[in-house]
Amino acid sequence: MPRYKLTLEYDGTAFVGWQRQNNGFSVQQALEEAAGRLCQRPIAVHAAGRTDSGVHALGQVAHADLPRDLPGDKVRDALNAHLRPLPVAVLSAEEVPPSFHARFSAVERRYLYRISNRRAPLALDLDRAWWVPGALDAEAMAEAARVLLGRHDFSTFRAAECQAASPLRTLDELSVGRLGEDIHVVARARSFLHHQVRNMVGTLRRVGEGKWTAADLRRALEARDRSAGGQTAPACGLYLTGVGY
Amino acid sequence: MPRYKLTLEYDGTAFVGWQRQNNGFSVQQALEEAAGRLCQRPIAVHAAGRTDSGVHALGQVAHADLPRDLPGDKVRDALNAHLRPLPVAVLSAEEVPPSFHARFSAVERRYLYRISNRRAPLALDLDRAWWVPGALDAEAMAEAARVLLGRHDFSTFRAAECQAASPLRTLDELSVGRLGEDIHVVARARSFLHHQVRNMVGTLRRVGEGKWTAADLRRALEARDRSAGGQTAPACGLYLTGVGY
Repeated sequence: MPRYKLTLEYDGTAFVGWQRQNNGFSVQQALEEAAGRLCQRPIAVHAAGRTDSGVHALGQVAHADLPRDLPGDKVRDALNAHLRPLPVAVLSAEEVPPSFHARFSAVERRYLYRISNRRAPLALDLDRAWWVPGALDAEAMAEAARVLLGRHDFSTFRAAECQAASPLRTLDELSVGRLGEDIHVVARARSFLHHQVRNMVGTLRRVGEGKWTAADLRRALEARDRSAGGQTAPACGLYLTGVGY
Repeated sequence: MPRYKLTLEYDGTAFVGWQRQNNGFSVQQALEEAAGRLCQRPIAVHAAGRTDSGVHALGQVAHADLPRDLPGDKVRDALNAHLRPLPVAVLSAEEVPPSFHARFSAVERRYLYRISNRRAPLALDLDRAWWVPGALDAEAMAEAARVLLGRHDFSTFRAAECQAASPLRTLDELSVGRLGEDIHVVARARSFLHHQVRNMVGTLRRVGEGKWTAADLRRALEARDRSAGGQTAPACGLYLTGVGY
């Protein structure tokens, strides 16, 4: 059975997250059901990362073994036809060697976190960005973010329910920039702890508000204690933008 | 009673359009109810243009006379508090002279039409752009669009239910550009006929697909007959971006 690599876009608002749950409809279930209808048998779909409920994807990667040898473009179009009208789209499908595994072959995950920093509430970007009405200093956030670069024990930014064996991670990029009313935080690493990006963004907010300096952020990191960090930024601002192999 | 000019953003998906209707909830009703709760009496709100159901606004302008003399920023924040959780936001509110009228003082309307020209269906931009999967030549569309510039009888692009006294309009801008997968059409005029922008975009699609030349578009314009034009592009791609006074 040929293996296909699928690149996915989805609006996380409508789902309980990537992974199948008993309490609602997941992106995984949507894709497995679409593939099942295409192939007339149960199909398992594995993703690079388990995005939480409300988290969006512009470039999630998954793989599936299909019992039909179809050109990638046919697989993409057929899955999209079976996914309608759900807000999940297969951007591309390509045949890959059986050694490829969406999760275990991945060497880099890339995320974008969108903050909308304006006085008025969000209308068109409701559920698509974190609304922070008070003024944020994006340059101060960008400068402080450098404290978190490199290899550290990220326990301060780790959710209590995180199942990773170790709190050590290597953060390769954490850049902050302003685009008009939007502040974009780009994070890149081989892998992240559960809620790590959202906890880093929630903590950087304190720096943006002028309540914390970069030195405060360093002390929080070194405390290796979740209670030393800032709030968990909401899921709606987070986008999985790509996975590197 | 001071008059306030309100600049509005909204997601048109949730509404039957700007104007109050018997068959659903309108943006006008949302704002009038929010203003009514703020002022404890019925308030009328008038807009520059009556956007259709599903049409979005990034810069709709409206005015209202309020029986309380409040700073503009207070009016903005209080209306936004009363609008929650609807996808309508007051971006700014400022006191204007009583001679100001959102509709009759307007000398320019600006619209953006977003086409998403890619093979995969839309997930994050569902209801926010027109999905056209077949390849479009944006340069050919841009070149042909110049045919429509200036003062013409736009009957070919006018909805049957249009209530304007004359089909003559002066189109000051109709530019087409590609940004990756997106094709943006920007239209600017003192005023537009009903469905004029959507009918022009639907007709330009024929040019983008290579089915029509600029000369075909000119013949369609000169026919002054709706049946000579192309389809009406869907509401979800249209954004009222601004109003000039």
